[in-house]
Amino acid sequence: MNSALAATQPIGPALPDGIETPCLVIDLDIVERNAERMAAQMSASGVALRPHVKTHKSVRLAQLQLRHGAVGVTVGTLGEAEVMADGGIGDIFVAYPVWADGRRAYRLRGLHARAGVRLSVGIDSLDGIRKLAEAVEDSPQALRVLIEVDPGNRRTGVAPAHAGALAVEADGAGLRVAGAFTHGGHAYAGRQAVAGAAADEVAALAAARDSLLRVGFEPEVLSAGSSPTAAAAAVAPVSELRPGTYLVGDRQQVALGASPPDGVAIAVAATVVSTAVHGQVVIDAGAKSLTKDLPAYIAGHGFLPAYPAGVLERVSDYHGMVVFPDGAARPALGEVVAVIPNHACPVIDLFESFTALRGGRSIGRWPVDGRGRSG
Amino acid sequence: MNSALAATQPIGPALPDGIETPCLVIDLDIVERNAERMAAQMSASGVALRPHVKTHKSVRLAQLQLRHGAVGVTVGTLGEAEVMADGGIGDIFVAYPVWADGRRAYRLRGLHARAGVRLSVGIDSLDGIRKLAEAVEDSPQALRVLIEVDPGNRRTGVAPAHAGALAVEADGAGLRVAGAFTHGGHAYAGRQAVAGAAADEVAALAAARDSLLRVGFEPEVLSAGSSPTAAAAAVAPVSELRPGTYLVGDRQQVALGASPPDGVAIAVAATVVSTAVHGQVVIDAGAKSLTKDLPAYIAGHGFLPAYPAGVLERVSDYHGMVVFPDGAARPALGEVVAVIPNHACPVIDLFESFTALRGGRSIGRWPVDGRGRSG
Repeated sequence: MNSALAATQPIGPALPDGIETPCLVIDLDIVERNAERMAAQMSASGVALRPHVKTHKSVRLAQLQLRHGAVGVTVGTLGEAEVMADGGIGDIFVAYPVWADGRRAYRLRGLHARAGVRLSVGIDSLDGIRKLAEAVEDSPQALRVLIEVDPGNRRTGVAPAHAGALAVEADGAGLRVAGAFTHGGHAYAGRQAVAGAAADEVAALAAARDSLLRVGFEPEVLSAGSSPTAAAAAVAPVSELRPGTYLVGDRQQVALGASPPDGVAIAVAATVVSTAVHGQVVIDAGAKSLTKDLPAYIAGHGFLPAYPAGVLERVSDYHGMVVFPDGAARPALGEVVAVIPNHACPVIDLFESFTALRGGRSIGRWPVDGRGRSG
Repeated sequence: MNSALAATQPIGPALPDGIETPCLVIDLDIVERNAERMAAQMSASGVALRPHVKTHKSVRLAQLQLRHGAVGVTVGTLGEAEVMADGGIGDIFVAYPVWADGRRAYRLRGLHARAGVRLSVGIDSLDGIRKLAEAVEDSPQALRVLIEVDPGNRRTGVAPAHAGALAVEADGAGLRVAGAFTHGGHAYAGRQAVAGAAADEVAALAAARDSLLRVGFEPEVLSAGSSPTAAAAAVAPVSELRPGTYLVGDRQQVALGASPPDGVAIAVAATVVSTAVHGQVVIDAGAKSLTKDLPAYIAGHGFLPAYPAGVLERVSDYHGMVVFPDGAARPALGEVVAVIPNHACPVIDLFESFTALRGGRSIGRWPVDGRGRSG
């Protein structure tokens, strides 16, 4: 492999000896460096950092982020919010258009009523506003809401010009309009899409602010972000950013230019269990350890830094087939190898805990507290 | 949608009211029908049924399969074997080339020593045989092994003609050679590949048998299978089949012709949380509830039987974007819809439990006992 290619491939953590595979490993030294770098970048831009903890779902990693200057956390589900609140985290934004009916209304009310928790939630519809307002109608404090606007990602969020109309409705229903948020997920189309997506986030929030100001709301928060867009979107009027994956990195972040190759703190440790078929080795990490998340601009279902010529061409539930060109160095039967996943978020969600490393040694298993809390 | 297309699309279970989403639902009436059908088919062919329980990882569903004539279970990992043994299941085959070192050797020895458990494991290498033999060397009973042969799937397994050589080595190391096994996973390339893959399984086991006979081993078990190939591979010399997904079905099985549209017992219940972007609705089941498992011959990340014109084009962690042509019927904001997953196995592994239905009503939450036991 030439050095130009090497510079675009993750390095990842060094594995300690004696690991039982498949096993999720996260290097806290690299995590800490990533946390510091992002916090410094946001601080230099005068923008608040509210990391999305759906990436790791770990209370301890969220606390590490708060120690490094995060103002609070972002979550994607009420389940994640509950886990973070249980872990003592006080400032939680559910960046999702919560539909508050049935048991979800009850859970939302419970979270909003917790002492020491400041909850904010996303909205993008009139009906959603009514449901939220009903769910918290007897609360002594108004629930903070942020209006989601679509920056061209075509996922959720109203057109930015409609933010004001929703704000009027939310305010009338007794909710407290704190501002607007957006997510430029279209950055994940590829490296060439990142700068445009960041600009779209900034423009969407500027338009949302104008819409809010026209109906008399001065937004306290204008929140954008993803890990790839964070650096470029940290400009006025954006006041807050919500990157998640930056903390641990993955192949996708490196490919998008959002993580340096030595910024990847995560690996799945796997054992070579079969070399019976010519031209490949089979590892015990398959789709149930690595997922089938496969962006178009990445080759293979994971990357083996120690064996860069190998391509993880296929995965079945418990098998990963790593194909090698003739003559290329490959691991031996029984060898334990590190595999860098394509996308950290769904991979971490597959594990109950991870081996946490400091100074290249295991300091124990840390729980993935919010594992499977997808609702 | 015309009726020819409808006949190729799953129907799935009817959802009970009041479900909290995202939620995995399995209809036991459909499960029972599938269990009976497969058992009858295997019984008529004089072939033993040893279902692969990695699909559902549920002790109760495994017990249901045993009540319907299964001779034992197949698992893919020692973790699944431990869960099934804990659940009182006595005949367990680990259809995987187990690499028995470190803690895995200890766990294997423990399983093999359990009273009331008959354990068999797969092998496909000389080194693997030595490791296995070391792990159980002090056991009063020899460990049963089955030699894995490759039917052209190019995953694991030796060439069938080499089965005899491995058998001699295993026998010499004190293991008990019970026979050979194979898996025609190349059936999943598409409907046109199924018959060939089944024929490949039969041919591989016939060749393995000949190789074993030549060195003096009369195989007790010649085990093949996957859900798509089960029917066609239930012929001599095959003595046992290991289908898994047939029990619950999924979109892939319907597309491959392995499950009738009314044989799909599984759905993920999801709520429409956003309709803000024109031409689509967004549901609260994304990649962390449905995976990104997307065979080339299937459109979208899941199928909504009640809204067949919708295509689940994109998933992010907690969002599923269902796109509709203009004028097509679509669910309203807040509506709960059933989504049939593309591939049941990794989807079930994402949930701690499922809502079990009888007569269309919930009879409670059943645990996914082996969830995340991927090693």
